[in-house]
Amino acid sequence: MAQEYRIDPWGTAVRIEYEKLFKYFGISEFAPLLPRIREVFGEPLHLMRRGVIFGHRDYERILEAYKSRERIALVTGFMPSGKFHFGHKMVAEQIIYYQKLGFEVFVVIADAEAYAVRKLDRKKVIEYGLYEYVANLIALGLEKNKHTHIYFQTNYEKPYYRLIQMFSRRVTMAEMEAIYGNMEPGKVIAALTQAADILHPQLEYFGGFKHVLVPVGADQDPHMRLTRDIADRFKSELGFERPSSTYHRFQVGLDGNKMSSSRPDHTIFLTDPPEQAVRKLKRALTGGRATIEEQRRLGGVPEACTVYEFYVYHLIFSDKELLDIYRRCRGGELLCGECKSYATELLAKFLEEHQKKLEKARDRVLDYAEPPEF
Amino acid sequence: MAQEYRIDPWGTAVRIEYEKLFKYFGISEFAPLLPRIREVFGEPLHLMRRGVIFGHRDYERILEAYKSRERIALVTGFMPSGKFHFGHKMVAEQIIYYQKLGFEVFVVIADAEAYAVRKLDRKKVIEYGLYEYVANLIALGLEKNKHTHIYFQTNYEKPYYRLIQMFSRRVTMAEMEAIYGNMEPGKVIAALTQAADILHPQLEYFGGFKHVLVPVGADQDPHMRLTRDIADRFKSELGFERPSSTYHRFQVGLDGNKMSSSRPDHTIFLTDPPEQAVRKLKRALTGGRATIEEQRRLGGVPEACTVYEFYVYHLIFSDKELLDIYRRCRGGELLCGECKSYATELLAKFLEEHQKKLEKARDRVLDYAEPPEF
Repeated sequence: MAQEYRIDPWGTAVRIEYEKLFKYFGISEFAPLLPRIREVFGEPLHLMRRGVIFGHRDYERILEAYKSRERIALVTGFMPSGKFHFGHKMVAEQIIYYQKLGFEVFVVIADAEAYAVRKLDRKKVIEYGLYEYVANLIALGLEKNKHTHIYFQTNYEKPYYRLIQMFSRRVTMAEMEAIYGNMEPGKVIAALTQAADILHPQLEYFGGFKHVLVPVGADQDPHMRLTRDIADRFKSELGFERPSSTYHRFQVGLDGNKMSSSRPDHTIFLTDPPEQAVRKLKRALTGGRATIEEQRRLGGVPEACTVYEFYVYHLIFSDKELLDIYRRCRGGELLCGECKSYATELLAKFLEEHQKKLEKARDRVLDYAEPPEF
Repeated sequence: MAQEYRIDPWGTAVRIEYEKLFKYFGISEFAPLLPRIREVFGEPLHLMRRGVIFGHRDYERILEAYKSRERIALVTGFMPSGKFHFGHKMVAEQIIYYQKLGFEVFVVIADAEAYAVRKLDRKKVIEYGLYEYVANLIALGLEKNKHTHIYFQTNYEKPYYRLIQMFSRRVTMAEMEAIYGNMEPGKVIAALTQAADILHPQLEYFGGFKHVLVPVGADQDPHMRLTRDIADRFKSELGFERPSSTYHRFQVGLDGNKMSSSRPDHTIFLTDPPEQAVRKLKRALTGGRATIEEQRRLGGVPEACTVYEFYVYHLIFSDKELLDIYRRCRGGELLCGECKSYATELLAKFLEEHQKKLEKARDRVLDYAEPPEF
């Protein structure tokens, strides 16, 4: 392994220079909030405890609001560009965690953006939206109540579209280009739509003011900055407050590169037959050494191991058990073969159970979301 | 008068190089259609007969469709940026002419564009939309039937917004810049919205396919070209056919420059108290000569006269009477004082009658259009 990893039991297989985000963009570290989260919310999500969620903006406001029993909306979205994989599951778990705490939930299926910017087939996009994204959210435990809103961007309420139109007044092309690079009409609309996705839950029409929390990937912060600026610019006219946000690391693909629907050999989907998922995980890049002898002597590098990352994100919920694996790996005691066997066992078990729920969930997608007619 | 005018009894006070439109952009002359219009529709509108409507694209298609009893939508819009003046009335008369022929009517109140691009106050824009534009349309004779659709851009149906999103996929920023110059986000949305305004009546959701006719000012042809291109690009996906269009000249203000809400001294509004309107018209630029003697000798120049233009567009509906005034003016027989007296008399009479209808019409605006809540 040429790269150097910081020793970190919650480590990730790719180093992203998160420090830059803290230093230059004013994102705050999430870890110091954990005691307060425990106090206000109870047990933090494993993704919080393990630093997968590593940064935030104005999260304190969410904690205060929760303590004062004010309304809070959890807003997030999915691009229905392919099958639902474990990277998506991580976001779903955050949604469900906050829903259990009593947050109102707004989930946008970004079908307009998938069609206009990603240039995907419209029918496919709608089908993925319903039968991959909505279905998996249900199977993972998203409840349907009067505060659960899952919507397609092309099939929502008038005041949402009105926001997109209105926002266009107070955003310049120069600002957009600074964030998104070269702009095309589809990207202009997608960016303003995203701001409407985040801010619309505060409108009277959508039930009146609520604080907004948006869990996003680290790369999405420019959107958050633009949306926070838009909130400021429409504060007097529409009464908006800035949204809060959290930032999570991305789980990598099984070869250490990007996890993506377009890289199916290195990405495990929640619909993969367990045998197939197991085969993929068996071939995954680990932090093992060249020889067994060397590994016994030097220990493995869990920070560089995509299997270990699966434990951190998805397969092991006890921190104690996870730390034990970490120590045994680093100590040269636990070798990759044994470790992979255990991981595949947990993975197969999860998938079997999940896919049973998913089958039932598919019959219920239309209770959760209304797809566009075209 | 330094400028030279073509002798033309239907002439306008400003020369616009309409020939360029014919030559370079493929707009066809409207006049040759008149016999066929008489045959298919009956008596042409005075604005057609007098060359105010001077050009078209694919109007033959509309005539054919009408003859075959196919459905046709007349689509047009108003920017609610101020009070309703005689320039707007000319468009209203076209709408009403086609409605009487049985066309379905779609009138957009461009409140999103007024707010986002023109940067007007939102409440004002909505108020103008209802109590100036919708009210005057009703007072001028627009009927409410199941095929009359007047809508605000920010308060319409989902599939309309879906079109805006979808169109953004197949339009480039370079194309838009070629048409509109420097693009800002508000202009991108306004341009795509305009295409949706024109094309949406063809959708199943809005009652299924109909041919579309759009009467516009000569300066609006670039929008038409973009929209026709968009129709082509979505033909297979959404079944669109290209819209047809007609092109009209603009009546000028009373000083010979632009007629505009922002130039109230030179623009007559349909809500002006008759005395005030009369005062404005009395001061209007005419085609008179420096002295009475000279005018008796050389004759007046009706082509340069804003009062004569009022006759052409609004005050005289008999071509015979109009031609008589034209000849008497050119012959030096009719002088400006007498002519203005007659014009102000007709104008005052029109305004008195119109304003009675307008008072009643204001109570009915909500039967015609639903304003946005914010």
